[in-house]
Amino acid sequence: MALCHISTHTITPAATLPLLRTAGHVYTFKQHQPFTPNACRQFSTAKTLPFEFFSSKRSQETKGNVQPLSLPSEPAWPHPVYTEKQMNDIKIAHRETKNWSDWVALSAVRILRWSFDRATGYKHDKQVALGKANPANPPKQYFAMTSDKWLIRFIFLESIAGVPGMVGAMLRHLHSLRKLRRDNGWIETLLEEAYNERMHLLTFLKLRNPGWFMRFMILGAQGVFFNGFFLSYLISPRTCHRFVGYLEEEAVITYTRAIADIDAGKIPEWNELPAPDIAINYWQMKKGATMRDLLNYVRADEAKHREVNHTLANLAQEVDPNPFLIKYEVPEIVERPVKGLQFTKPTGWDREEVLTMASTKTNMPM
Amino acid sequence: MALCHISTHTITPAATLPLLRTAGHVYTFKQHQPFTPNACRQFSTAKTLPFEFFSSKRSQETKGNVQPLSLPSEPAWPHPVYTEKQMNDIKIAHRETKNWSDWVALSAVRILRWSFDRATGYKHDKQVALGKANPANPPKQYFAMTSDKWLIRFIFLESIAGVPGMVGAMLRHLHSLRKLRRDNGWIETLLEEAYNERMHLLTFLKLRNPGWFMRFMILGAQGVFFNGFFLSYLISPRTCHRFVGYLEEEAVITYTRAIADIDAGKIPEWNELPAPDIAINYWQMKKGATMRDLLNYVRADEAKHREVNHTLANLAQEVDPNPFLIKYEVPEIVERPVKGLQFTKPTGWDREEVLTMASTKTNMPM
Ligand SMILES: [Fe+2]
Ligand SMILES: [Fe+2]
Ligand SMILES: [Fe+2]
Ligand SMILES: [Fe+2]
Repeated sequence: MALCHISTHTITPAATLPLLRTAGHVYTFKQHQPFTPNACRQFSTAKTLPFEFFSSKRSQETKGNVQPLSLPSEPAWPHPVYTEKQMNDIKIAHRETKNWSDWVALSAVRILRWSFDRATGYKHDKQVALGKANPANPPKQYFAMTSDKWLIRFIFLESIAGVPGMVGAMLRHLHSLRKLRRDNGWIETLLEEAYNERMHLLTFLKLRNPGWFMRFMILGAQGVFFNGFFLSYLISPRTCHRFVGYLEEEAVITYTRAIADIDAGKIPEWNELPAPDIAINYWQMKKGATMRDLLNYVRADEAKHREVNHTLANLAQEVDPNPFLIKYEVPEIVERPVKGLQFTKPTGWDREEVLTMASTKTNMPM
Repeated sequence: MALCHISTHTITPAATLPLLRTAGHVYTFKQHQPFTPNACRQFSTAKTLPFEFFSSKRSQETKGNVQPLSLPSEPAWPHPVYTEKQMNDIKIAHRETKNWSDWVALSAVRILRWSFDRATGYKHDKQVALGKANPANPPKQYFAMTSDKWLIRFIFLESIAGVPGMVGAMLRHLHSLRKLRRDNGWIETLLEEAYNERMHLLTFLKLRNPGWFMRFMILGAQGVFFNGFFLSYLISPRTCHRFVGYLEEEAVITYTRAIADIDAGKIPEWNELPAPDIAINYWQMKKGATMRDLLNYVRADEAKHREVNHTLANLAQEVDPNPFLIKYEVPEIVERPVKGLQFTKPTGWDREEVLTMASTKTNMPM
C-alpha cells in the first residue's frame, strides 16, 4: 500500500500552508487531479496530511482482514441502542399473505431467493425457514458454509438491501414536491433504513474484499434490481413495502443461521474475531465485541426493517402518518411502534392499531 | 371542508379501542380504504380522532391564507440557527466560469431562466443580477410583481429546487453500494439540502394554494427536470453541482428582489403578514416573525446551497471528503466550511483550501 507518512499532531490551517511553502516545495494542485497515492506523495514532503484516507484506491482499506478505520466516524443517523436481551429475543417470523398484492410480493421474494441460492450453490433448509427446526441442527445438512462464503453472501445481499429504502424515499420526496403535499414522515425512516443497510455493507467490507467477479455481479444485480424496484414502486408502493418485509424475513433467517453456525462451533475463525471498529462505533457496542455480537446487531436491524416495511405495507400510502416517528403521548410502557427494539411486532402493526395510537400523537415530522 | 369533530384531550390506546366499541358502533376498516373525509366520518361517532390531519384532501389545508399546522412538527434535519446579522450580510454573487464544464452549467441555467421568465412574462433586470443596481430601484421597472405572482413563482421554483439534492444523494448512495466504497459524507448534506428545499415549498404552500394549471405545470416540469438531472448526474456530477451553484445564484437574486420589493413598500399586504407556524418552528424564528423575515431565512438557505454546490463542484467527486461535515480541530474563529452561516464563501471553497483544512479533521461520516 502506497500511503503517505503522516504526523499525528494537530496543525491549524493557518500553520499548514506556510509550513508547506517554507519547506521549499511548491504546493501545486491541479483542479482535476484525483487524489491518488501519487498525488499523495506530493504532499508527503511536509509529512502532515493524512490523505491516504481519501485515496481513490479505497479498496486497499479492505484488503486482508479487519482493517479498522483510521479515524472515528459519526453516523448520519445515530443508531438506536439495543440491549442484549432485546437482540436475543429476535425470532424468525412469517406474515401470512392476505391479498393479491401480498402474494405477488412473497412470490417475488421466493423466486429471487431460489434463483440466488441455486446460482451460488447454497441450499437453505425449509424446516429452518418455517421455524420448525433448530437452525443450529437442521434436519439435513445441505451445504457447509465457511466464513468466506458467509461474508461474500452478506456483502452481496447488503449491496442490494440498500436500494429499496433509497428508492422509496426519493419517489416519496418527488411525490411530495409535485403533488404539493407533505409526506407524513415516511421519507426519514426510509432513508435511515437505506443508510443502515449501507453501514452493514461497509462493515462486512472491513472483513472481506470481494474480487472482480463478485464486483461484476454486484454491479449487474444493482442495475437490474434498481430499475425493477423503481418501476414497481411507481406502480404499487404498498406491494414494494410488503416485498421488502418478506425479503427481511429471509434476512433474519440468514443471520439466524450464521449465528447458529458460530454457536455450533462450525466457524472457529470467528470465535474470537473482534468486530471492526466501524461497527463498534456505529452500534455503540461494548468493548471487546466479537463477530457474533456483530451478527446479532445486524439481525436485529433486519428484524426492525421487517416490522417497519410490513407495517408501511398495511397503511394507506398517501395519507397515513409514519407510525415509527410519531411521539406518542402515552406512558412509556404502552406498546407502540418505535425506532428501537423496546416494542416489536415481527409481522407489522395493523392499520387500525396505528391509527388508534396516532390519535394520541403530539408530534409529526414533515 | 368535511372534517371530523375531535376532542383535544389525550387518550391512551388502551382506552381508545374500548371507547370506540362501547359506543355501540362497529370499528371497521377495510385495508385499502383511503382516509377520505368519508372514512373519517365513520370514526366521528367516537369524536376522539383528529384524522382530518391525514385526510387525502391535504390541499384543503392550504386554501386561503396562512393556515398554520394543527400540530407542531419536528424537522428531519434541525435547521442551523442564523443570526439577523448573518442573514442581512448575504450578498448577490457570481462565480466566474473557469472551464468548459462551468460554461455548460452556466449556459444551462441561463437558458432555463430565460425560458421561464419569458413563459411567465417576468422580466429580470440584468443590472440587478450583476449586483450593479439596487434591486429596490432597478434602472428600469419591467414588470410589477404582486404578492400572488411572487408566491406562484416561489412555489414553482421550490418544487424544482428539491430535485437535485435528492438525485445526487441517491446516485451517490447507489454508487457507494455498487463500488463497495464509502461515500465520504456527501450524501447527508445533499439530503439535507433536498429536505430544506421541500420545507421552503411546504412553507409557501401555507400562503397560497396553486390552481390546476399551476399543478399541471409543476408535474410536467418535474418530469423533464428529474430525468434531465438524473442523466446529467450520471455523466458529470461535477457539472451538475456547478449547475446547482449557478441556479442558487439566481435564487439569491430572486429573493433579494422580493425582499427589496417589501422594503420599497410595493407589497403592502406582506408588511404585517406573520410567517406561517411551520416556518417559525423550522427556522426557530423569533416570535412575531413576518413575511420579510421568512424571505430573509429562505434567501440565506439559498446562499448556503450556492456555497455548498460551488464547493462540491470544485472537489474530486469520488475521493474528496464533504468539507461541510468535517469537525475541524481548529480554534472556533478560524474560517472554514460549516453548516451554518458563521463563515461563508459565496463562490465556494477551493479544493486546495478544503484539503488543507481537512488535514486537521478529526471526524468524518460515512
Ligand atoms: Fe442489512
Ligand atoms: Fe434489511
Ligand atoms: Fe429554496
Ligand atoms: Fe436552493
